[in-house]
Amino acid sequence: MAIRLGENQYGKAEVRLVHVSRDSARHILRDLNVTTQLRGDFDAVHTEGDNANCLATDTQKNTVYLLAREHRIGAIEDFALLLARHFVDGFDYVRGSRQEVEEYGWSRITTADGPHDHAFVRDGAEVRTTVVTRDGDREWVVSGVRDLVLLKSTGSEFRGFPKTAYTTLADTADRILATSVTARWRYAGTDADWDASYAAIRATILGTFATTHSRALQQTLYAIGRTVLEARPEVAEIRLSAPNKHHFAVDLTPFGVDNPNEVFYAADRPYGLIEAAVYRDDAPEAGRAWESVPGFV
Amino acid sequence: MAIRLGENQYGKAEVRLVHVSRDSARHILRDLNVTTQLRGDFDAVHTEGDNANCLATDTQKNTVYLLAREHRIGAIEDFALLLARHFVDGFDYVRGSRQEVEEYGWSRITTADGPHDHAFVRDGAEVRTTVVTRDGDREWVVSGVRDLVLLKSTGSEFRGFPKTAYTTLADTADRILATSVTARWRYAGTDADWDASYAAIRATILGTFATTHSRALQQTLYAIGRTVLEARPEVAEIRLSAPNKHHFAVDLTPFGVDNPNEVFYAADRPYGLIEAAVYRDDAPEAGRAWESVPGFV
Amino acid sequence: MAIRLGENQYGKAEVRLVHVSRDSARHILRDLNVTTQLRGDFDAVHTEGDNANCLATDTQKNTVYLLAREHRIGAIEDFALLLARHFVDGFDYVRGSRQEVEEYGWSRITTADGPHDHAFVRDGAEVRTTVVTRDGDREWVVSGVRDLVLLKSTGSEFRGFPKTAYTTLADTADRILATSVTARWRYAGTDADWDASYAAIRATILGTFATTHSRALQQTLYAIGRTVLEARPEVAEIRLSAPNKHHFAVDLTPFGVDNPNEVFYAADRPYGLIEAAVYRDDAPEAGRAWESVPGFV
Amino acid sequence: MAIRLGENQYGKAEVRLVHVSRDSARHILRDLNVTTQLRGDFDAVHTEGDNANCLATDTQKNTVYLLAREHRIGAIEDFALLLARHFVDGFDYVRGSRQEVEEYGWSRITTADGPHDHAFVRDGAEVRTTVVTRDGDREWVVSGVRDLVLLKSTGSEFRGFPKTAYTTLADTADRILATSVTARWRYAGTDADWDASYAAIRATILGTFATTHSRALQQTLYAIGRTVLEARPEVAEIRLSAPNKHHFAVDLTPFGVDNPNEVFYAADRPYGLIEAAVYRDDAPEAGRAWESVPGFV
Repeated sequence: MAIRLGENQYGKAEVRLVHVSRDSARHILRDLNVTTQLRGDFDAVHTEGDNANCLATDTQKNTVYLLAREHRIGAIEDFALLLARHFVDGFDYVRGSRQEVEEYGWSRITTADGPHDHAFVRDGAEVRTTVVTRDGDREWVVSGVRDLVLLKSTGSEFRGFPKTAYTTLADTADRILATSVTARWRYAGTDADWDASYAAIRATILGTFATTHSRALQQTLYAIGRTVLEARPEVAEIRLSAPNKHHFAVDLTPFGVDNPNEVFYAADRPYGLIEAAVYRDDAPEAGRAWESVPGFV
Repeated sequence: MAIRLGENQYGKAEVRLVHVSRDSARHILRDLNVTTQLRGDFDAVHTEGDNANCLATDTQKNTVYLLAREHRIGAIEDFALLLARHFVDGFDYVRGSRQEVEEYGWSRITTADGPHDHAFVRDGAEVRTTVVTRDGDREWVVSGVRDLVLLKSTGSEFRGFPKTAYTTLADTADRILATSVTARWRYAGTDADWDASYAAIRATILGTFATTHSRALQQTLYAIGRTVLEARPEVAEIRLSAPNKHHFAVDLTPFGVDNPNEVFYAADRPYGLIEAAVYRDDAPEAGRAWESVPGFV
Repeated sequence: MAIRLGENQYGKAEVRLVHVSRDSARHILRDLNVTTQLRGDFDAVHTEGDNANCLATDTQKNTVYLLAREHRIGAIEDFALLLARHFVDGFDYVRGSRQEVEEYGWSRITTADGPHDHAFVRDGAEVRTTVVTRDGDREWVVSGVRDLVLLKSTGSEFRGFPKTAYTTLADTADRILATSVTARWRYAGTDADWDASYAAIRATILGTFATTHSRALQQTLYAIGRTVLEARPEVAEIRLSAPNKHHFAVDLTPFGVDNPNEVFYAADRPYGLIEAAVYRDDAPEAGRAWESVPGFV
Repeated sequence: MAIRLGENQYGKAEVRLVHVSRDSARHILRDLNVTTQLRGDFDAVHTEGDNANCLATDTQKNTVYLLAREHRIGAIEDFALLLARHFVDGFDYVRGSRQEVEEYGWSRITTADGPHDHAFVRDGAEVRTTVVTRDGDREWVVSGVRDLVLLKSTGSEFRGFPKTAYTTLADTADRILATSVTARWRYAGTDADWDASYAAIRATILGTFATTHSRALQQTLYAIGRTVLEARPEVAEIRLSAPNKHHFAVDLTPFGVDNPNEVFYAADRPYGLIEAAVYRDDAPEAGRAWESVPGFV
């Protein structure tokens, strides 16, 4: 019997980077949160504290800022690929890399003169994400969105589920359906029109949620996944995680008052949690694409 | 010497209430967080555990839901006034009341058929607020917004401040100015077109932030306050609290690279914190309007 | 009618300061979060963007670190007083100051050789606090604790409250009482054995919570306040804010199973919120001690 | 080409359960957060909204409370195994189950009469965790701790790392090492003295952190993993994730003041993030033990 070091990775987490493109008076803003991770020949760091191969996380942070200066920051997928290639190609003891980038949205402030050149207001809580993994010469791009909060005030039912000895919930033909979608989709390749693809997928998620009559949140999620794959050939697979944020119609009968689905209590915990993957059966292998991607089936 | 009970209040905090108006197929959604607080003849509850005057917080919660059902939920100010009057007028041992209501914004999802009737997506992180205080027959309305995150990528300087023995900061003629505005404004009276007033004040905050060349965040805040008061006669006073969310241009000179205000590090802590009130000198007295309103000068 | 600047203050918030006393191999650790605020002659900063009197928040931050180096960091009250005096005495345009300091607790890690000299583990979530206010020559010290989470599994009842048309809650002779205490106490003077006083007050809060048979959370809070004032002559006044963190016995009767107060659901929202002040009637005036102290009656 | 449903699971998340054992006047408290997840024959739920096999998450919640009542709540591992077996053995369309349980610690309040029978104060922020996975007849137990915050004020260096074109960090022979450990260890079997094992592993983590002279956080983590495996034969593998919570000695030289590692700035972001697994090479296969365990290599 021997004790061994297993999988490991390390890097700098949550490097907050705001990039302002000042090519014209109309500034372009990209607000990112970058987490670098390296995999490779790091056994001696762990077993002996020998740092000869330990590219410092501080150096990784500097690299993020330098590459942001030297290259135009466009889509987060391109920036993550740039970082992954920099580390794996640049250091022989780095065999793989995981680059996670989140982007926060901003809108131009509208004044009497129209959208402002350099003043912005933060958009909603939703966050655009990507995780780029490189392993030797192979690369995978998994992009997504999180904290996309949706609600339907009707068009959702939940019926026909098993009534067991431990069941108290009654069938309902009309309920509020609310959720906060986390979606992550694996691209088939490593080049795409990332910004256009993101916008289209986000719109598909919203549209499918809105127009699908829901018999279960599972059904809605699968419909979202299927519709995205049908519409976007560049996507190989999509994984969805969605809490069922319960809204309970308040029982006002103790006071002799009815409640025709008008007054709801929005509960915090517990909540349903539904997770599912949808994929093309001819998609390329996932390889290490999903390793240490948080919170997924 | 004697030990005495001083000021006190109690109630139900964070009653999450979602109201769906279903008068037509085009549902109207209001998503609220209500905190009720009562003040009055509650000495015996504290000193003897005699609950004869202790209107249970559970009863207060029921009241929120019942009044939401029995009255149309419109502006949060009207709902808070309704609650305050209900409690103070309804129970002789209740002498005063503080009702705080927060509202979370939702937008209709846009599909190929236009804005959807009953499917919504959560707006930005910003929250509309009101605190209505009633003390006997007197009433005050303090409304506001919080978590309104703004950024200017230029048009902000900070110069001419004292250079002391402990100063290291240099003058700058061009910096990012970013903040998360919490504003609370006291209305002169208890009726107004609340929704219109809110929309106009929010737009004024954004517009003034965008168009004011800033020499200090204090100056920007005062400009916001002044502009709101000039434009909105129904407002007696406004209080603003704003962190200076520092964005530092990354120093790339160790690498022989310049950084003409393109690459920034967005810092978390510490941050500047600027707070100021602006008022009309002929405004009615504030009375108890600001008591136990969180976080203000 | 004129529009005027009202009360205002500014400073550096959340300066994270860890101080290690290395006088011996047995290190002493103090882990602080410092927020400085200045009040004074700052009208021109607001109205004209004239920063001649605007001692930069960056300079305030430097001052925190320098004073931490030059003076032994002892009790947070002494450090806050030191900062307040530094700013008000040192700059004629600074007329007043508010210094808030929070302290996070650490315990020594115990090994086979006993408590370790320089290795520590974070204590509970509770935080020790102080807010020192100076206005000209006057000074006030308000210290406290927050996030002190307590629970009694019996010895708590709630009965005899008004049964109104909107009441559904039933009397109970035995319930879980759980809360997260925020307490702030104003000292009568500006010198005391701060650390000893804090330890004694914290122990009194815990002991009184444990040994008081509770008929209402209000009664428990008042008992805590009264006991602290009786035991600690240096305290002039105490203010308490405490959520009633509801634990509901789960109704298992639909399954033919009883539940003799063994299985509880710990609810998040809504929660009761109880706030009260207790004071000595011969205490010195509070002056500006409580201004912009968050969340209090 | 066809689009297919992939892996999926669903259940009730964050069922907050407080259990009071009242066998004697000296109550025993267990404060849990339970997340149930089922895997099985749920294709029709997704593809057709046919809920015939959809055991409602509300029913799963009821089950948590009922099993807590019917069985003595002991170690969280036993409770998670009980739940997993209940679901997989009880319903033929349930093929697998993932049960996650977190436990929050409480200590008895000490009064003049000693530790109190039924009054408690919340311990530190650290949380004990377990994830039990059942797949058909196979079972795995992965237990752990999260948010265990540790700090060494000396006995940590970081030297000898590569100095590249992008490196600015200097070697240091003495720094603060601070982290918040998340550890998860897979047990070789499904019975153990869980509570004793947890206590021993937690003590080992603390002791190894304290007594290991650290040349890199990686080395400290590996030492922790190795020591746990050496001491605890019931553990097959351990995975550790630890942020390097940077504490920077403040540069006071601009003010002519030295800083012999006494005054530190505790930074928030970015932070190093170090993750590693350590295992026995004769350990049984991990199978599905680590599937959808959050945040791990």
